[in-house]
Amino acid sequence: MTNNSAILDRMFHALADPSRRAIVQRLCRGPAAVSDLAKPLSMALPTVLQHLQVLEHSRLIRSEKTGRVRTCHLEPAALATAEHWIGRQRMVWDQRLDRMEAYVKALRDKEAKREK
Amino acid sequence: MTNNSAILDRMFHALADPSRRAIVQRLCRGPAAVSDLAKPLSMALPTVLQHLQVLEHSRLIRSEKTGRVRTCHLEPAALATAEHWIGRQRMVWDQRLDRMEAYVKALRDKEAKREK
Repeated sequence: MTNNSAILDRMFHALADPSRRAIVQRLCRGPAAVSDLAKPLSMALPTVLQHLQVLEHSRLIRSEKTGRVRTCHLEPAALATAEHWIGRQRMVWDQRLDRMEAYVKALRDKEAKREK
Repeated sequence: MTNNSAILDRMFHALADPSRRAIVQRLCRGPAAVSDLAKPLSMALPTVLQHLQVLEHSRLIRSEKTGRVRTCHLEPAALATAEHWIGRQRMVWDQRLDRMEAYVKALRDKEAKREK
């Protein structure tokens, strides 16, 4: 397993939960205090903190404490890593479709020449 | 939790494992028999079958049995769902950056007018 693979493991695992996705969605609109992130989630604060820990471990977010307030920030580069992985697979798939289309076209052209 | 959210849960969970990602990568190049998918994974066949079950449950792949051979196919629409979710978040983030840039530019313009 490469380092990059371990990063993808943690990232996709972090995104496989609706509360954690809701936190990521919120942080895309800007940094937020933990208490603000917890409000719409209707769950106990320790559970929210666990979710935030998973997200920090996956590097999708980072946090900093000023006085008694912990503020969370999105790390957009991490989100881009996950997007690029999926995008690369789709590209391979699309190229395969293109090759199949070209093959079918070549067969048709051959057939058309024969009929002339 | 909406149905779409449950689908994303399963999809990201399925992608959070290097062997399952390797299977998806392989299937992007075309359908493959279970035995062919198992070869490069160096793990027991029952473990491979468990991974395939997780991938089928997430709708990232489907399989069909002809005689004694089970063949797996990629379901590109499912991969697109995961890509779109991430893409949407990135778009919100980018729009935020654009707004911040516009705000900074407006402040600078105001400052420049004052100095004239």
